[in-house]
Amino acid sequence: MERIDFVNTTITGGLWKRKQDMVRKTTVYAVYDRFVETGRFDAFRCNWKEGMPNKPHFFWDSDVAKWIEGAANLTAEKREPKLEKIIDETVDLIVKNQGEDGYFNIFFTVVEPEGRFSDRSKHELYCAGHLTEAAVAYFKATGKRKFLDAMIKYIDYIYDRFYIKRDTAFTTPGHEEIELALVKLYKCTKNEKYLTLAKFFIDERGKRAETDRTPAMSNQSHLPVREQTEAVGHAVRAMYLYCGMADIAKLTGDKELADACKTIFDNVASKKMYITGGIGSTSCGEAFTVPYDLPNLVAYSESCAAIGLALFAGRMLDIELDSKYSDVIERILYNGFLSSTSLDGKSFFYVNPLEIIPYLQSREDVSGYDGKAIRFPATQRKEVFSCSCCPPNIVRFITSIADFIYSDDGETLYVHQYMQSKTTVSRGDVSLNISMTTRYPENGRVKIKIDGGETKIAVRVPFWCEKKFDTIKGYAFFEIKDGETISLDFGMPARLIEAKNDVSLDCGRYAVMRGPVVYCMEGIDNDGHLRDIRIDSHSSFKTGKNESLGVPTLTVCAWRREENPDAPLYSVMRRRLVGCKATFIPYYAFANRGESEMLVWVNTK
Amino acid sequence: MERIDFVNTTITGGLWKRKQDMVRKTTVYAVYDRFVETGRFDAFRCNWKEGMPNKPHFFWDSDVAKWIEGAANLTAEKREPKLEKIIDETVDLIVKNQGEDGYFNIFFTVVEPEGRFSDRSKHELYCAGHLTEAAVAYFKATGKRKFLDAMIKYIDYIYDRFYIKRDTAFTTPGHEEIELALVKLYKCTKNEKYLTLAKFFIDERGKRAETDRTPAMSNQSHLPVREQTEAVGHAVRAMYLYCGMADIAKLTGDKELADACKTIFDNVASKKMYITGGIGSTSCGEAFTVPYDLPNLVAYSESCAAIGLALFAGRMLDIELDSKYSDVIERILYNGFLSSTSLDGKSFFYVNPLEIIPYLQSREDVSGYDGKAIRFPATQRKEVFSCSCCPPNIVRFITSIADFIYSDDGETLYVHQYMQSKTTVSRGDVSLNISMTTRYPENGRVKIKIDGGETKIAVRVPFWCEKKFDTIKGYAFFEIKDGETISLDFGMPARLIEAKNDVSLDCGRYAVMRGPVVYCMEGIDNDGHLRDIRIDSHSSFKTGKNESLGVPTLTVCAWRREENPDAPLYSVMRRRLVGCKATFIPYYAFANRGESEMLVWVNTK
Repeated sequence: MERIDFVNTTITGGLWKRKQDMVRKTTVYAVYDRFVETGRFDAFRCNWKEGMPNKPHFFWDSDVAKWIEGAANLTAEKREPKLEKIIDETVDLIVKNQGEDGYFNIFFTVVEPEGRFSDRSKHELYCAGHLTEAAVAYFKATGKRKFLDAMIKYIDYIYDRFYIKRDTAFTTPGHEEIELALVKLYKCTKNEKYLTLAKFFIDERGKRAETDRTPAMSNQSHLPVREQTEAVGHAVRAMYLYCGMADIAKLTGDKELADACKTIFDNVASKKMYITGGIGSTSCGEAFTVPYDLPNLVAYSESCAAIGLALFAGRMLDIELDSKYSDVIERILYNGFLSSTSLDGKSFFYVNPLEIIPYLQSREDVSGYDGKAIRFPATQRKEVFSCSCCPPNIVRFITSIADFIYSDDGETLYVHQYMQSKTTVSRGDVSLNISMTTRYPENGRVKIKIDGGETKIAVRVPFWCEKKFDTIKGYAFFEIKDGETISLDFGMPARLIEAKNDVSLDCGRYAVMRGPVVYCMEGIDNDGHLRDIRIDSHSSFKTGKNESLGVPTLTVCAWRREENPDAPLYSVMRRRLVGCKATFIPYYAFANRGESEMLVWVNTK
Repeated sequence: MERIDFVNTTITGGLWKRKQDMVRKTTVYAVYDRFVETGRFDAFRCNWKEGMPNKPHFFWDSDVAKWIEGAANLTAEKREPKLEKIIDETVDLIVKNQGEDGYFNIFFTVVEPEGRFSDRSKHELYCAGHLTEAAVAYFKATGKRKFLDAMIKYIDYIYDRFYIKRDTAFTTPGHEEIELALVKLYKCTKNEKYLTLAKFFIDERGKRAETDRTPAMSNQSHLPVREQTEAVGHAVRAMYLYCGMADIAKLTGDKELADACKTIFDNVASKKMYITGGIGSTSCGEAFTVPYDLPNLVAYSESCAAIGLALFAGRMLDIELDSKYSDVIERILYNGFLSSTSLDGKSFFYVNPLEIIPYLQSREDVSGYDGKAIRFPATQRKEVFSCSCCPPNIVRFITSIADFIYSDDGETLYVHQYMQSKTTVSRGDVSLNISMTTRYPENGRVKIKIDGGETKIAVRVPFWCEKKFDTIKGYAFFEIKDGETISLDFGMPARLIEAKNDVSLDCGRYAVMRGPVVYCMEGIDNDGHLRDIRIDSHSSFKTGKNESLGVPTLTVCAWRREENPDAPLYSVMRRRLVGCKATFIPYYAFANRGESEMLVWVNTK
């Protein structure tokens, strides 16, 4: 089963078409402008000196690299001369400032020129990896080789230093990413040495203590990867590592490695994932913690980590067909990922909480010790961050989202995600044209038409679907004739979802989902005091629309205590509750109307 | 209205008699032994040198001083030669190592001998204050003057440096406490200069920026005290300051100061106090935060802060009769204070959470960054802490608890707290013998017998009492004849208590109280997953007893989800709940049976 690359698929309508249009029109430029303002693009001139503003950070190469990858993805579908010009100029600077040996890194050129390959915690190979991904994407999109050749030269140098000479101060990257980039470079060039190097980085990780200012567990270096069974440490690093592991397992048939990936994936999906698909629940190390520790108010759930889990799940699906992977992707796409971006496409969450109580934001202000204790997530999206990994990651992710839709094994076409789209599958002489029509996730109806031949088709029955289908590993199989259309209807009633009782903080509370979309209440729609609202679990939800946000709504009967501002701090339980309506919007749309309370897990009566 | 000093009152039975016996038999020695082991007593030899173990900390003087005060309190009721010997030996060391100018401080003698009165953040005057309190207590208990005279000499020196010469690097103490100690010294010696110095420290605070490594708000130095309206910063410092303010207001008739105290007290009691009477909700600066920010799981609620609030409330009651003060004292005594100490009297909580989920304790262990993020409270009491202010504070507090029971104004005897006790009130030629008989808080029945004359008597009707009494400021007034007994019965059904809806984290949840006692569930009695239990709010509580703990219990009908370890992380709401019993024990008795989940605020159905 091989994935159908997003460059061969066009999204033609619906939510993701709107998001891709938004990125093309707004987001790619919004991120670019902020990166120009903060000196990230100028940094590629490599002329920064002490005393000048905008001192390059050691991850800036990767910020711009992800932006380039996103812009390249846009170019792949429709030429974008303005974006290409920016990319070409940046590539010119890279080539100009690249060492004769191939080395390129802004920070280790202008800030710490003596530090090359000496500090495992400074993201050097991570930057190289993202630049490589960008170069591959740009080559795929435009056929231009300059960037790709420069990165081949750089990777050849890394290969020589890390794999042949082994004369560097560390063996494996402190922030994983280059592993999966090397696999992309291998697939693009067919040069086995890149696969060898990727495998080397995977195989050596955790085999010995490495000199590092970062704790070993934080970058999954506490154990050899094949012995790891639990997702630990920095969530984004973890996900990129697991992507690399899954890639190698798929390409080399390494069953032990595949099994480690499966065990770790199950650990995440069964114990360490928010209902939104968000992962990494603590800001401390941006990390995973213990099983079932999923606090809502102080969630971390970084946008990049959600992207990382989707990428990992996609690769697991490459290894074995199982809807548990595509279900997790769906959960992320419509919730923990989509929440990252404002509806206008200009601002972003780095951290995606599942509850906001605005007054707690200032909790440390009167302790006298600002910012030293609990770090509550920001309640409003920002246009740029000092560590601005998420915005460009969002750009490249949305522009390549069609990567998750289809796979093919020459006999069966697999449909993993439901997005209105067209694609083409070549099977020897036969070329199948696939056309999917759906308003998903507005409703659960999907039509898939095949032209050009007959085929088996396997469609994912979503995890939330209550209709009965005959399935194998969560997929329903059909035979479909040339020119025929298959019509599916998964139904999509709003439902109350519970968490396993081990997730203590969610006990006694329920989340509202309709199809794959998690809903939330915002204070602005519900007169605040959201935790005081008890929804009627026997009443049915009414669907509606919030016109100003352009998103669907759900309303349901509920009760709450009568407002009594004069109530003492503690008093005898009032038994009488007053009826009210509770209004929900999709979680992904929260925080688009200014500061407001927000709650996913609600009480019932 | 003057308070009847605890030395004139004997507690003769009931809960507090048992606690006082426990302190006399166990706790005072347990704390002493740990302080000996950690070098705190040896430190008074002032012969520590760099390289030796047990480097004295800058608050060690105060740790031992509080222990001496507690031991002195015990001696006041019944001579304790063993304790007196320890105290006398320690006093000898103090006198021996006291400077000719009167100065005495271990840290600034052996660790930073050049640093005297130069570092506002190093608790120098706080230590002086506690030593002075101890000296006064020991003098009152035994009539021995040596310690008192030594402290008079030291305070005279402080008076000279801070008030006359004003040549110190700071004007007011970084950690308040000496103000209230000076008032005690003034009352003991009748020397006005100590009142003057106390007033000086109060008046000067917040009038100017002081050089300090601690933020101004942390030690209430952000505004002149008369302009302060909100409890902020370090909760213990705040309480000791407010005690000093209230003392001065009472003694000098300073209405503006009294008004500031009233405003601040109301701010605490209406917005910043746990249902247990605990205060200071963040570990960051051990401080108050914003109104209604009362997290249960990451509560701070330091034992010393609860003590401090009781001391402050007691002083407010000295200023004006109002049961809001004595109610808060009661709330603290039976909950946020009493929880501090194990039932065997040997170990202590510094931090008193209102919820424990044990698995969260290790949440940072797998992030790779131990102890850098959210600090969850300890789940088990400890025998000693590196900062061990609470254990000796508990000793002196329990041994002086009778301070809170009675006041007299020459016409009316006021009964604020209900504890089986005897006391004597002298009114000119008349000497009234008062005898209170009660099993409070086992039940709400109280008998008070007066011998030796007739009097008016005012008894507090507790905040939780549902019976109707004619009251003025929460007190019911009666005339009582010589030899007569007044019988009260406040009733004491278990009830469900709600928090104001501004306390977001408590919304939709209820606390169980019976009389003044807050109850909690522990995992060990309820098969864990406490947040999943929904108690039947219409069912009545059954009282019982936990024989092994020797505490009362309450049980009530409840429902919970059937255990299903194989449940997926998220699934459709199960409507069927199974019936169960929910068992509650007094909050003060939690964590006496090993590691266990604990919950105060419970869900209902």
